[in-house]
Amino acid sequence: MPTIDGERVVADLKRLAEFGRYKTGVHRPTYSAVDIASREWLAERLREAGLDPVIDGIGNVIGRNPNARHRLLVGSHSETQPYGGWLDGALGVIYGLELARAFAADPDCAGLGIEVAAWADEEGHYGSYLGSRSYVGALGEDEIDQVTGRDTGTPLRAALAEAGLAGRQRERVSPGRHVGYLEAHIEQGDTLDNAGLRIGIVETIVGIRNFRVAFTGEQNHAGTTRMARRKDAGVAMVRLAVALHDRFPAVAGPRTVWTVGRMLLEPNAPSVVPGRAEMQVQFRDAEPARLDACEACLLALVAEADRTGPCRVAAEPIARSEPRPMDAGFQALIEAAAEDGAPGRHLRMPSAAGHDAAILSERMPAGMMFIPSLGGISHHWAEDTKEDDIVLGARIFADAAARILRSAG
Amino acid sequence: MPTIDGERVVADLKRLAEFGRYKTGVHRPTYSAVDIASREWLAERLREAGLDPVIDGIGNVIGRNPNARHRLLVGSHSETQPYGGWLDGALGVIYGLELARAFAADPDCAGLGIEVAAWADEEGHYGSYLGSRSYVGALGEDEIDQVTGRDTGTPLRAALAEAGLAGRQRERVSPGRHVGYLEAHIEQGDTLDNAGLRIGIVETIVGIRNFRVAFTGEQNHAGTTRMARRKDAGVAMVRLAVALHDRFPAVAGPRTVWTVGRMLLEPNAPSVVPGRAEMQVQFRDAEPARLDACEACLLALVAEADRTGPCRVAAEPIARSEPRPMDAGFQALIEAAAEDGAPGRHLRMPSAAGHDAAILSERMPAGMMFIPSLGGISHHWAEDTKEDDIVLGARIFADAAARILRSAG
Repeated sequence: MPTIDGERVVADLKRLAEFGRYKTGVHRPTYSAVDIASREWLAERLREAGLDPVIDGIGNVIGRNPNARHRLLVGSHSETQPYGGWLDGALGVIYGLELARAFAADPDCAGLGIEVAAWADEEGHYGSYLGSRSYVGALGEDEIDQVTGRDTGTPLRAALAEAGLAGRQRERVSPGRHVGYLEAHIEQGDTLDNAGLRIGIVETIVGIRNFRVAFTGEQNHAGTTRMARRKDAGVAMVRLAVALHDRFPAVAGPRTVWTVGRMLLEPNAPSVVPGRAEMQVQFRDAEPARLDACEACLLALVAEADRTGPCRVAAEPIARSEPRPMDAGFQALIEAAAEDGAPGRHLRMPSAAGHDAAILSERMPAGMMFIPSLGGISHHWAEDTKEDDIVLGARIFADAAARILRSAG
Repeated sequence: MPTIDGERVVADLKRLAEFGRYKTGVHRPTYSAVDIASREWLAERLREAGLDPVIDGIGNVIGRNPNARHRLLVGSHSETQPYGGWLDGALGVIYGLELARAFAADPDCAGLGIEVAAWADEEGHYGSYLGSRSYVGALGEDEIDQVTGRDTGTPLRAALAEAGLAGRQRERVSPGRHVGYLEAHIEQGDTLDNAGLRIGIVETIVGIRNFRVAFTGEQNHAGTTRMARRKDAGVAMVRLAVALHDRFPAVAGPRTVWTVGRMLLEPNAPSVVPGRAEMQVQFRDAEPARLDACEACLLALVAEADRTGPCRVAAEPIARSEPRPMDAGFQALIEAAAEDGAPGRHLRMPSAAGHDAAILSERMPAGMMFIPSLGGISHHWAEDTKEDDIVLGARIFADAAARILRSAG
């Protein structure tokens, strides 16, 4: 088994967290100056590890391994959520770097090559999985032309130019080049932490369905319009939202999650009866049948509200990703490594968050491994994981990678 | 009775509506170039009517009548809501102009003087009843320093300077100068229109209470945070809103109106469990006891939600105006004029909208008269009233003004 230097892993993670440090977390939006500086820093480390690094036209950092007989692609994303955590994404990238060094240094691993990827914009500052989608060939130039910054409004083209990436080639997956893709990540939930477990073996990355529900009523004066004649789009919205929260538990599975994270009233003024309202309903599960049941429930509630009146109610799907099962062979090998490194303290589980591994799984066998998140805190600067778990995770991850590469022949 | 020229009233209203015409309505925000142009146009018409006009430091147009023995102040506001109606405000101002001409031309009205006011910013583009509050001495310089445009963010001081009003004196009410204040307005509701009535005699301008209700939960990842451990501020908000809409009918009176016109989620992102939410709850009634009952109900719901959890819920009052009864003597005289001009087709009623008359009533006897609004449409460019109602309204209003002035001695 290739030898991991635990202190080096933690030191690299701490160094990477200096790029955009915020309290105990990090603020490093995609294509910001600190994000680009961190990618350049990473490319240098990859070069030192014996890889041939490139920062490509979408910002992906790829450490290529020209001479290996079998190659495993290992990575995660490099930017953070706004004022986010120091391990979300970074952990999987630094694990990749450490594996590259450890495999290169281990004579037993001759011919087994790690290639490292730090994908751009998994966190959606500009788009949806821009980096990994670019790599698998699912990101067109037209989309790059149209997308703008979620928080800044900056066109993606302008951000790429400002970052010095305009005109660079985008790296693409080569069929047959890789045995597969392996990603480590913090769990972002509290399942492992609560149960005192050390490792999660991801079975499936959940599917996500997102609907926009629009309510059309009649905008009116909030003083002179009697209650009986109102068509208040805001009232229709809160009633549907409550009905949804009341009914979903009966159709959802034990791990289904549903969220109304976004609501808009028009004109959103205290003295005006809202004429229009809109909410986004998102639900996630690893099983398509559960997603179907939730969708049917939502659409039935919408139809019922539209029929009952007084407002018109309509739902439209705005995003949909199917559950992506991870490779069964990879799961077995990660589990075997976990049982060796942390006997009895690992769990097969779905990932309730989306990950680049879901995108990569469209083109090659893919696997994911989780380590615990303290208190399940995620997408917040307070996110953290015990150092012991970080180091043990790196060892088990390296073992799993070796088992996967060896299984290839 | 002074003689009204109905064609002239309608022609003046149509001319005034040219300032900022939008479809069949008007877009004339306070202190915009068209608003100032319309005020200058009005000042000229007041001069032609024999008054001494001034546009004061807050934008009020006042047509002073230096020589009358008894003076009645007559008017309304001059700007419109964004893309609003052509009669809201304008009707009462042009009625004032017409009354000034008619009284001046009628030998029977010798010594009975109409003074005309076109108040600034009743519609709240910058503040709350800026013009009438300035006139009664309830608008301090510090407030003028602080206020900014609702839709533009422009500081009020900058808007006044741009409009050429900086440094001008603000007109103030002189004790004893006026017999009282009289305002005509479209109803903005559909009570008169539905019942085929021609005139409303306002008994009270409703009181308004506005609360901000804040919900504090825990912001979290919408994928990895299990339902059972969420503290979703958005769920708490929609549940409270529905409880409020369900319980208010039992405590409200037949004319009470309540509105949740404004809602905010934080961070308002589809994939994030909202950590904070806020809504504004407004209710209006002419009777303080009804307002008290609604307030008690709201505060009980808030306390119950806060106790039950999982989110913290708190309410704070952010605006409060007491119901303002109109002068009983004025009501009787308006009603007598209405019975002469439209026998059996008038109604005593509250005003569910706020008006400058509520402000003026703090310093002098005040009265209000309504004419119908077609379909009750208000604060929308489609607002309208039949020409017959406009002309009949002017005649009855002039008769009411004459009765009020004569009753003064």
